[in-house]
Amino acid sequence: MSDTGPADTRRRISLRTTRMEAFSDGVFAIAATLLVLDLTVPAVTSKDVGHQLAEEWPTYLAYLVSFATIGNAWLGHSVITEYLDRADPILLRLNLALLFFVSVLPFPTHMLAEYVSNEGAERIAVTVYGLNLLAISAFIAIIWHYALWQRLVTKDNTEDDVRALTKKLDPSLASYAVVIGLGLWQPKVAVVLYFIIALFMIIPFRAVLQEARRRRRS
Amino acid sequence: MSDTGPADTRRRISLRTTRMEAFSDGVFAIAATLLVLDLTVPAVTSKDVGHQLAEEWPTYLAYLVSFATIGNAWLGHSVITEYLDRADPILLRLNLALLFFVSVLPFPTHMLAEYVSNEGAERIAVTVYGLNLLAISAFIAIIWHYALWQRLVTKDNTEDDVRALTKKLDPSLASYAVVIGLGLWQPKVAVVLYFIIALFMIIPFRAVLQEARRRRRS
Amino acid sequence: MSDTGPADTRRRISLRTTRMEAFSDGVFAIAATLLVLDLTVPAVTSKDVGHQLAEEWPTYLAYLVSFATIGNAWLGHSVITEYLDRADPILLRLNLALLFFVSVLPFPTHMLAEYVSNEGAERIAVTVYGLNLLAISAFIAIIWHYALWQRLVTKDNTEDDVRALTKKLDPSLASYAVVIGLGLWQPKVAVVLYFIIALFMIIPFRAVLQEARRRRRS
Amino acid sequence: MSDTGPADTRRRISLRTTRMEAFSDGVFAIAATLLVLDLTVPAVTSKDVGHQLAEEWPTYLAYLVSFATIGNAWLGHSVITEYLDRADPILLRLNLALLFFVSVLPFPTHMLAEYVSNEGAERIAVTVYGLNLLAISAFIAIIWHYALWQRLVTKDNTEDDVRALTKKLDPSLASYAVVIGLGLWQPKVAVVLYFIIALFMIIPFRAVLQEARRRRRS
Repeated sequence: MSDTGPADTRRRISLRTTRMEAFSDGVFAIAATLLVLDLTVPAVTSKDVGHQLAEEWPTYLAYLVSFATIGNAWLGHSVITEYLDRADPILLRLNLALLFFVSVLPFPTHMLAEYVSNEGAERIAVTVYGLNLLAISAFIAIIWHYALWQRLVTKDNTEDDVRALTKKLDPSLASYAVVIGLGLWQPKVAVVLYFIIALFMIIPFRAVLQEARRRRRS
Repeated sequence: MSDTGPADTRRRISLRTTRMEAFSDGVFAIAATLLVLDLTVPAVTSKDVGHQLAEEWPTYLAYLVSFATIGNAWLGHSVITEYLDRADPILLRLNLALLFFVSVLPFPTHMLAEYVSNEGAERIAVTVYGLNLLAISAFIAIIWHYALWQRLVTKDNTEDDVRALTKKLDPSLASYAVVIGLGLWQPKVAVVLYFIIALFMIIPFRAVLQEARRRRRS
Repeated sequence: MSDTGPADTRRRISLRTTRMEAFSDGVFAIAATLLVLDLTVPAVTSKDVGHQLAEEWPTYLAYLVSFATIGNAWLGHSVITEYLDRADPILLRLNLALLFFVSVLPFPTHMLAEYVSNEGAERIAVTVYGLNLLAISAFIAIIWHYALWQRLVTKDNTEDDVRALTKKLDPSLASYAVVIGLGLWQPKVAVVLYFIIALFMIIPFRAVLQEARRRRRS
Repeated sequence: MSDTGPADTRRRISLRTTRMEAFSDGVFAIAATLLVLDLTVPAVTSKDVGHQLAEEWPTYLAYLVSFATIGNAWLGHSVITEYLDRADPILLRLNLALLFFVSVLPFPTHMLAEYVSNEGAERIAVTVYGLNLLAISAFIAIIWHYALWQRLVTKDNTEDDVRALTKKLDPSLASYAVVIGLGLWQPKVAVVLYFIIALFMIIPFRAVLQEARRRRRS
């Protein structure tokens, strides 16, 4: 009887992590795919359609940045859950907060695409957009630090990975903060910089090195 | 031969629970993410866009309440399946009924946002919205009580958890009923109260205490 | 070496079933949840909003029938995969065909809601809708019979369950065929009958009896 | 201690493959199901609705081609992960690129349906559409070749399957390239040919033969 107790608890705990992953994967996948609904097809007018499509470039760039940011958040999330041994109720709520900011991203993306031609409106849109990107990165960082603090992660290799993950999370948070400030003055440049941050985060510097180390060991 | 029988049955039973979770996670994730489609971007007019966005606050509050309520239902659902040992056909149907009310929530949310400026219409919208929130909580409670009644849950610690889960479910049902009545008279106050109920349910009082107890034991 | 071969094959085969389930659960969940987008909120006019909402009853009935039919198909699908030991490439394609008809259902549902006030258009909409419902049930039946024929199902209790599942699938196919014919003449009655078929299929007669038998045995 | 190290690493690695599959299944399922939103219901006018629906055939063909192509990509993806032993960070990024082209497909599908009546616009739409289909197939091929190159796949039967998968991937890439060229000159024929390519890829020649071989062996 006392043996089934801990076994059942363990099953429940791992189940909780599994469901957190399944629900999160769902929200990430849907948010990433819903973005496509904002790509409007220009109506066929007397004007050249090819030209019209080319003019829509800010919509396409915003789509690309948002997709890359969500993909990126998913990658960070999967790294965290990779090391996660169990989930506690507070972690589940922090995860919900992250998912809130992921699922709301199509809204500022749409706003950005809509307001790109109007200077005043564009400034607001770019700022809201930047704050949303910052919130996503911030919650990835908060979840990771909370998991470490509460010792919810497995013990092996943690030391190395903490440093490696932090090395990416902290500069990205700082650069989002800087670009949000810059965006008030140069909104179009800010969008391009958000794209560069997304690319920088998505390129697996850490993982490539780690993989190399892993191979050398085995 | 007689050995593979029960083993196969067990595999099938656990599979059934797994699929119920996967389908439910899908519906929860999609309903939560589809809400974003109702956040309309105001057109750029001569008017100040920042001012226009600020005026849209009821849409944003409705979005927040709906997201928190779905997140909350998901948390309750994951607590139930955490203790669920197997699913029976009636439980699967009760779960479908819950998912019906979860997936329909974007409709009254949209209605609420649309009708906020018109007093008569607002009253109807807030009432329909409240009934939907009540139905979600009621089905979480029904599923939980059905699972306990049919002994579909694992046996360890159940006594404690029954009391703890009931302690949250029952007052939330009562408060939804009260606020629905109040909403006929004060619709705007009702929406704010729905937000407070969602916050009250999402804050993990029970889990924090339980976690503390668990740690003390080990 | 020859030992790892079969083990790996087994892992791959079970993985294939798992992915078929995950992808199917996704499509079922999304199709069921996307239906909500067709529930349009009537604009606030001089007319009474409550009255306007009441007038929209065909939209709400169509929504309910579609949700119940998808929920039903999911239940049938989960019964099949419950007995499925492995998936073969042809089964995966038949499953894709089923998912095609599930994912397209929001279209005739929308058509039905739109055309309900126009007699000629309503007849077409109800017929297309009925054919879609028939196709979903037919593919559930085809997948089940294919799996039995190719011996992809586990062997225990199959005899009983084949009869039980057939007992529900075959009459439902027949009644859809009859109601499609009737719908050409009485479209509104047909929609109500589709609702009754969905209710008949969703009520777990078989499962209740089986559960009773299972308990008596143990 | 040194024992738990590799065991934990193994758990993490298999988790990573699981999440890649779950996220991918989500995106595939959503992209396939979102296509339905582009099937617009023609308004009821004095004109015959049946006739109006028949006129919309290009929309329905485009829907069918896109659904078949996504279904097809999912089948290819599930074959790859079937043989995948583990995922590395670069594979995860290549997979994200594939998912990008899958999730964007509803956009050119919508464009195709919209522009079918205008010759100049149709040419652009068919070309963009063809490039998207090519990109999906190309990334399936890239992921497969990368996994083989990095020895991320299980070792049994690989020789046969490499040849079999390549036999389908390479001609499909070549035929997409040819049809994209042809589409500049004959856009409507190109759409029909894309449909034939999708059908050719979805018919399980390889799997049927392999199944036959497997049965003969056992």
